[in-house]
Amino acid sequence: MSSPFATNMRFKFPALAISLQIILIILFGIFVRYDTNHEHGHENITAEDDTFITLYPLFQDVHVMIFVGFGFLMTFLKRYGFSSIGINMLIAAFGLQWGTLMQGFWHLHNGKINIDILKMINADFSTATVLISFGAVLGKTSPIQMLIMTIIEIAVFACNEHLLSFLEVSDIGASMAIHAFGAYFGLAVARVLYRPALTNGHENEGSVYHSDLFAMIGTLFLWMFWPSFNSAIAEPGEHQERAIVNTYFSLAASVLTAYAFSSLFEHKGKLDMVHIQNATLAGGVAVGTCADMNINPFGAMIIGFTAGIISTIGFKFLTPILASKLKIQDTCGVHNLHGLPGVLGGLAGIIAAVMGAKENVSAAMQSAGLASSIGIAVSGGLITGFILKLPFWGQPPDQNCYDDSIYWEKPAWYVSRIPTLFTKSWISRYNTFY
Amino acid sequence: MSSPFATNMRFKFPALAISLQIILIILFGIFVRYDTNHEHGHENITAEDDTFITLYPLFQDVHVMIFVGFGFLMTFLKRYGFSSIGINMLIAAFGLQWGTLMQGFWHLHNGKINIDILKMINADFSTATVLISFGAVLGKTSPIQMLIMTIIEIAVFACNEHLLSFLEVSDIGASMAIHAFGAYFGLAVARVLYRPALTNGHENEGSVYHSDLFAMIGTLFLWMFWPSFNSAIAEPGEHQERAIVNTYFSLAASVLTAYAFSSLFEHKGKLDMVHIQNATLAGGVAVGTCADMNINPFGAMIIGFTAGIISTIGFKFLTPILASKLKIQDTCGVHNLHGLPGVLGGLAGIIAAVMGAKENVSAAMQSAGLASSIGIAVSGGLITGFILKLPFWGQPPDQNCYDDSIYWEKPAWYVSRIPTLFTKSWISRYNTFY
Amino acid sequence: MSSPFATNMRFKFPALAISLQIILIILFGIFVRYDTNHEHGHENITAEDDTFITLYPLFQDVHVMIFVGFGFLMTFLKRYGFSSIGINMLIAAFGLQWGTLMQGFWHLHNGKINIDILKMINADFSTATVLISFGAVLGKTSPIQMLIMTIIEIAVFACNEHLLSFLEVSDIGASMAIHAFGAYFGLAVARVLYRPALTNGHENEGSVYHSDLFAMIGTLFLWMFWPSFNSAIAEPGEHQERAIVNTYFSLAASVLTAYAFSSLFEHKGKLDMVHIQNATLAGGVAVGTCADMNINPFGAMIIGFTAGIISTIGFKFLTPILASKLKIQDTCGVHNLHGLPGVLGGLAGIIAAVMGAKENVSAAMQSAGLASSIGIAVSGGLITGFILKLPFWGQPPDQNCYDDSIYWEKPAWYVSRIPTLFTKSWISRYNTFY
Repeated sequence: MSSPFATNMRFKFPALAISLQIILIILFGIFVRYDTNHEHGHENITAEDDTFITLYPLFQDVHVMIFVGFGFLMTFLKRYGFSSIGINMLIAAFGLQWGTLMQGFWHLHNGKINIDILKMINADFSTATVLISFGAVLGKTSPIQMLIMTIIEIAVFACNEHLLSFLEVSDIGASMAIHAFGAYFGLAVARVLYRPALTNGHENEGSVYHSDLFAMIGTLFLWMFWPSFNSAIAEPGEHQERAIVNTYFSLAASVLTAYAFSSLFEHKGKLDMVHIQNATLAGGVAVGTCADMNINPFGAMIIGFTAGIISTIGFKFLTPILASKLKIQDTCGVHNLHGLPGVLGGLAGIIAAVMGAKENVSAAMQSAGLASSIGIAVSGGLITGFILKLPFWGQPPDQNCYDDSIYWEKPAWYVSRIPTLFTKSWISRYNTFY
Repeated sequence: MSSPFATNMRFKFPALAISLQIILIILFGIFVRYDTNHEHGHENITAEDDTFITLYPLFQDVHVMIFVGFGFLMTFLKRYGFSSIGINMLIAAFGLQWGTLMQGFWHLHNGKINIDILKMINADFSTATVLISFGAVLGKTSPIQMLIMTIIEIAVFACNEHLLSFLEVSDIGASMAIHAFGAYFGLAVARVLYRPALTNGHENEGSVYHSDLFAMIGTLFLWMFWPSFNSAIAEPGEHQERAIVNTYFSLAASVLTAYAFSSLFEHKGKLDMVHIQNATLAGGVAVGTCADMNINPFGAMIIGFTAGIISTIGFKFLTPILASKLKIQDTCGVHNLHGLPGVLGGLAGIIAAVMGAKENVSAAMQSAGLASSIGIAVSGGLITGFILKLPFWGQPPDQNCYDDSIYWEKPAWYVSRIPTLFTKSWISRYNTFY
Repeated sequence: MSSPFATNMRFKFPALAISLQIILIILFGIFVRYDTNHEHGHENITAEDDTFITLYPLFQDVHVMIFVGFGFLMTFLKRYGFSSIGINMLIAAFGLQWGTLMQGFWHLHNGKINIDILKMINADFSTATVLISFGAVLGKTSPIQMLIMTIIEIAVFACNEHLLSFLEVSDIGASMAIHAFGAYFGLAVARVLYRPALTNGHENEGSVYHSDLFAMIGTLFLWMFWPSFNSAIAEPGEHQERAIVNTYFSLAASVLTAYAFSSLFEHKGKLDMVHIQNATLAGGVAVGTCADMNINPFGAMIIGFTAGIISTIGFKFLTPILASKLKIQDTCGVHNLHGLPGVLGGLAGIIAAVMGAKENVSAAMQSAGLASSIGIAVSGGLITGFILKLPFWGQPPDQNCYDDSIYWEKPAWYVSRIPTLFTKSWISRYNTFY
């Protein structure tokens, strides 16, 4: 049990978490106010006033995607459910406060950040990038490391987002700004944190029957609410409606191809839960950039069709190559769900710009946006990786990767009442069953 | 292992799924457009423009019912959770595209189908019929068979729906058009696919503790969002509000009687999870036809009260008779949740018409609507059943019914590390535990 | 097996449930009508008419909190998931009908209760008090007892709520009227129902791995939708938006402190699932009273920061003391999630009143509201406790506490096919595993 790492988080983690929250409160006290641009009271509600309550259901859909969607999607690991859902919640709750500041600093009004529903939606969006990156390093990092990654990644994300906005890049569903960015940031971190001992897999790195069903809760809430993700900040009216319609049909198309290619690749044509949980969502990622453009429903379906195929191929063939050749151990396969489909989304946006699917969109600027998102993500991720590699953040030793017991009080597979019939060694085997 | 059926789906299933998706894209390219009846841009939003975003939350509630509600409700089987939730998703994703076309062809504008939020809600509705029928044959069919059933059933459903509309039948929550239709269609299919070997039950046909809890996720999301289902396409204002209020109270009443009769029928007055998962929803089904009528909240509660009783009685006494006498093996008991309460809903609509609870509703036409729904469903189901009985659709042999392992890669009860202490035969018994 | 209690619910429970439902239908027939204050039809929808459909998504969020949030939060017990989610549903379905009447009787219009969306939200709210109290006695009571508690508690709650309204107490998110009230009512009941035999714990009183994951479904849906809970009945416009913003940030802050203090208190700085499932929600409870006041986002975050700390401290140190010294066995720790944060919310409201954070709010009246809520809750709870202590309500004997098998048909841990390798006594130990 002599570990090269000290995984005891006592004092370190509480001190960091409380300090961050106090700093946030102070910064909020200085900078953050309610948005009071509207008339007061009930009688004088104007069309503009209505925006808050009209978009609130879309905000809540995005909120569910962040906390339940991403959280449960990562519970597929048999022994890492507490961490998946718990650290997801920690990152998101910290990140939405931090994101409010990092994004708000680019748009101060009289030195203040005025909170409205769009700011809240964007704050949730900013956490999505970190949660995507979290998927790449899932099981191999500590909560402390994840808080540090959140601080850096959201700051970098807000800069890239501002750059894209400056370049007038159209990316309403953030295929580039969130999905590709989050994926390549996370992959760069994972590259730096490469663990040779995990090259041949780890006994905890797999699912059990019910953990796969928990993961489907995440998949389905992401899938259902993706039209809200891609349309929440779109221009009301025609553009927003298009974003909803396009995402609805793109997602449906990617389900069919994800199932088809899963069956095509597997033994006896069986389906693989990994593909169903992930590649069915690729249509939502890939249609993001074009979502509010005039690509017509069949255009959206072509994007989804392609995304489902690319994503499944990625899981089947690319992930093993990334791990063996590039030394990138991508736990959740975020490259296949967010990376490749995000790039596809960026490319689709360039094509759509060429075809004039949205006014005032330039193929050159779209290309610059894609390059910027990937370039800044990789750079930021590498730097973050080297910071996270410092040996005092409580990261788990190799043998305790993908294991809740290192950061959580007695998860229940350490059964308290051991049947005397069995030896200890059997118990540990037993625990891998469920 | 010599099986009369070839369950290998490789090539067959991918070829079918990809072909269907390509056909859908071509047909969408020809026929489907955005709805552009409204003024463009932000400033000119009129009341009519608002319909899309106003109804969008109700659409999302229905969407959750289709994917999470129906999907998780069927995960009660101990070894069939992957298929329940996975094939549910496949049917729904394919069905909503197909339903858009099948329903849209009856309402072309200048040869085009213009997608608005009502079209999307109706597309989701059309998949509900197939998911109900899926419940009747759950565990005994292949994904290929389910795609074929989806093609036929949605086409037939759209015809019956158009007929009801032509007859000016009032069925806002679709007790007849969706619930009774889906149930009797599915029962007819199940009759044709009767398997004598399953007469005395099957070792996989049961739940385990956590599978029953997963099923409750489905039950609760269906229960909570049913007011949206029954009101989503109602006339805005008074009618829509009534539909919400009536469904809210009808559902509450059916919970009380479902619990009461479950306890009344069981050993020592205990409750039965099957009744709680299903009969509590009967109030939503049965109030569907009358939902937007002026039946007053207590009228809705009387309908729910009755539905909860009828449904529980159906599960306790009718399902065994259907199986033994009529050779209809109804896996999920859809007859009790959708069939009987759907008919009750149709009858309630006839009574309400007689009592003048809604303007321009005729008892005769309501009766014709109920008869049409059941008649067309049974006919369509029988034909579909004979098509599905053809021996090359990859259906499971009797011994592999209700078992994910035939269509899914290594579900986790086939444990990779077998404790050497145990023999193989024990493992298979072990697997029934969780 | 000679039990001092008769747990057989047959006849008793069905008779009670059906009688209650019939009484409800009769009272609804006499008193309850649709709200018809608005113009009829589609064309004439006015701003006021829109309230129903505008608030409907917030109603549905609250609905999800009641049925999925509270229901799944209590599934953490390893053998009591059916009862947690099932009795939760029963209480809520009965309670929302009963609450409609109890609250409506205080606001009759021409002798009638006119149902609108606010009445439905308030009906759901009234059930929340009972579900909170249910948490205090979870595992130690019968469904019959819970129906009786629902009858009394909602009646008393409606009186206290009317008193607060009369005193012009501002309590938009109901920190006092629902959370403190429900907690202290439940604790008083638990005190009267004290079971000495459970002093040293019970073998069923614990979680297993997957039951903790089910509980997180409840936690997350409560957490995400709490802004809707605190804003649903707020004045539209500025006040409602503030309530959403304040709750959003208060909750985020309480997550950070709940995680920090959980790690601080536990062995080696590990996190405890009990704290994560509960104390992360304390920010939503505590900001309730002030939610629509002008406290600024950083003020809300200070409240959430404090609530997360207090709640975690409560779980760690206060719950054991309550059990050992005051003989209050609080199964779910509702004192820490609803009691202490509710009182904190009331105190925050008094301070906010002093600071003038909302027009026409008096610190004296706020104090009276807090005192009234706690005083009436304790009194009502004690009386209810003595009624529930009568020996013929089917309560479980000590050895069957926290055990579904006493009220549910064959939960699946009573495995039907017992491996012949094992003795019966081992099976019972085995069943504690999962």
